[in-house]
Amino acid sequence: MKLNIALLAGDGIGPEVIDQAVKVSDAVAAKFGHEITWKPALTGAAAIDAVGEPYPDETHEICAASDAVLFGAIGHPKYDNDPSAPVRPEQGLLKMRKKLGLFANVRPTFTFPSLLDKSPLKRERIEGTDLVFLRELTGGIYFGEKGRRDGGDTAYDNCVYTREEVQRLAKKGFELAMTRSKKLCCVDKANVLETSRLWRETVQAMEKDYPEVTVTYEFVDAVAMRLVQWPNSYDVLITENLFGDILTDEASVISGSMGLMPSASMGADIALFEPIHGSYPQATGLNIANPMATILSAAMMFENFGLQEEGAAIRAAVNKALEEGYVTEDLANGGKSYGTKEVGDWLAAQI
Amino acid sequence: MKLNIALLAGDGIGPEVIDQAVKVSDAVAAKFGHEITWKPALTGAAAIDAVGEPYPDETHEICAASDAVLFGAIGHPKYDNDPSAPVRPEQGLLKMRKKLGLFANVRPTFTFPSLLDKSPLKRERIEGTDLVFLRELTGGIYFGEKGRRDGGDTAYDNCVYTREEVQRLAKKGFELAMTRSKKLCCVDKANVLETSRLWRETVQAMEKDYPEVTVTYEFVDAVAMRLVQWPNSYDVLITENLFGDILTDEASVISGSMGLMPSASMGADIALFEPIHGSYPQATGLNIANPMATILSAAMMFENFGLQEEGAAIRAAVNKALEEGYVTEDLANGGKSYGTKEVGDWLAAQI
Ligand SMILES: CC(C)[C@H](C(=O)O)[C@@H](O)C(=O)O
Ligand SMILES: CC(C)[C@H](C(=O)O)[C@@H](O)C(=O)O
Repeated sequence: MKLNIALLAGDGIGPEVIDQAVKVSDAVAAKFGHEITWKPALTGAAAIDAVGEPYPDETHEICAASDAVLFGAIGHPKYDNDPSAPVRPEQGLLKMRKKLGLFANVRPTFTFPSLLDKSPLKRERIEGTDLVFLRELTGGIYFGEKGRRDGGDTAYDNCVYTREEVQRLAKKGFELAMTRSKKLCCVDKANVLETSRLWRETVQAMEKDYPEVTVTYEFVDAVAMRLVQWPNSYDVLITENLFGDILTDEASVISGSMGLMPSASMGADIALFEPIHGSYPQATGLNIANPMATILSAAMMFENFGLQEEGAAIRAAVNKALEEGYVTEDLANGGKSYGTKEVGDWLAAQI
Repeated sequence: MKLNIALLAGDGIGPEVIDQAVKVSDAVAAKFGHEITWKPALTGAAAIDAVGEPYPDETHEICAASDAVLFGAIGHPKYDNDPSAPVRPEQGLLKMRKKLGLFANVRPTFTFPSLLDKSPLKRERIEGTDLVFLRELTGGIYFGEKGRRDGGDTAYDNCVYTREEVQRLAKKGFELAMTRSKKLCCVDKANVLETSRLWRETVQAMEKDYPEVTVTYEFVDAVAMRLVQWPNSYDVLITENLFGDILTDEASVISGSMGLMPSASMGADIALFEPIHGSYPQATGLNIANPMATILSAAMMFENFGLQEEGAAIRAAVNKALEEGYVTEDLANGGKSYGTKEVGDWLAAQI
């Protein structure tokens, strides 16, 4: 396969971890006979510094013309303390999601047996946890009309959803559930919100097309509780943008493997792959950042092209590294640890 | 002191646990020389069944004319599965909050040393946890305009906040912080929402009036994570209605003492006190429900009247019951347990 991949390294540790994912992906391509052309482009604070815009048109064109996007991390402390600053890295993120039509954010949370003790939760609560959130990513209150009235004393944000937006996200949820344990949980606040009632009725109407899938409907506050109590009782969860923002982050800490979690954001034409962790500015350039979440994001990318074996090769290498202790200091429990680059080299050599 | 207290027992186990709180409160009143007149009124499914309305006008008049409201729990399975049903118990709850002007929901989460092992979190993560959420309760997306367009295919919910609404909630937060460790965390999503930016700028402007309070600003997704990682790093948190709904429920499970957590909802003129647990319909009439959360809600009620000693007497009795194992089966760890009524009797006798 010939693959054109846009490469958005971003800020902080982004470039370092992206380098390792490129290295491992190239090893996979060499082994399985694919050809990857990487197309680097600017984003985040790095793009603001260079061209005054966190998601420049040129970057968009490179992404739109690619088969997929591999993304590092964005965010820089100099933009952190003032959410009302005129130009901020997150705006680039939202613009990118909208312009590339990345409507479904796929956020798996799973456990690695060797890392269970890193979780804040007791072992028996998380053993076997393997769930996936599908978060709607281009609608809802993030993108509704917002502004001020009354000379600035009243603020408003509109949350809007159409049946179609719910359907295309829910369809992905049903399809994913079919490949897993056939359990789907629709998370909403239908006892209060009209948009949630639209979500619920739309998903209910789709149930007949997937008779094998068991669908449950739970309120967002109840899910926020049960995720901490019994995370392993969930499998596939679908939800709207803001609930997804909160719950996927909550879910990411319970497994104890947050530093290893990959994610994908899927559109009709293109998909983007990125680690869930941030740009970790304090670690920039120190060769200590854990590249595994980004490398596992590359695995998701291969799998999304239908290249299951390629993805599995990466996952196997990561598992082996975890078992043999070939890890960065965050996972070393005070024992021997390796640099970002060394872990990348080791994983590439395994492939 | 002469106190008129509206008594809203509600549904499920509500009446049973309310009975115990009345018994304990009467014991406190007798001991400290107060006179409580209880004014029972209908609410929830019980009120729908009786008069077709979950918060009847008559109930509102009784509440509005009282010095405080003591509330059990509402909700009945026959209304559970259809959030679009024309009359539902929750609507009564929202109407009551709005009509009584209960704008500040006070939700403490604290640990009892003897119950630490009940938490899904590891002991070292929760030891010493003692935090309070102040959730805005009469504004935001709960009460904004909502509806459908495009023949039902588009749904919307508006989130609206005024500076005044933020100020009165934040003022309570600053005041509470002054009585505790002088740490206040404002939880918002100011990187995306205009209402959050109004929250943040309003709280920032109030900082100068409370120079001793250290204020931090955190995004709701980050708080959803850190609540699970290090709940004991928080003290007083203030937030808007929907974020508060999600985060207070999440926080309630981490302490391991969810069945014991009381809450208060404060307005300008009146306050309401209730356990955070639900109506637990399966346990109705079985004399097994734990009455302690409702009894501790009565303690909050006394304290809110400035009757600190009275509140402390109740808390001391509850602590003693926990230490001596005079508890309902949910806390008995398979050991000897007592009925709802027996625990109420024992606590009243201690006073
Ligand atoms: C940075 C922020 C705008 C973003 C979001 O809320 O979507 C982030 O929290 C995420 O989840 O990717
Ligand atoms: C029942 C529901 C409307 C209510 C809310 O969302 O406020 C409940 O979850 C609560 O937190 O009291």
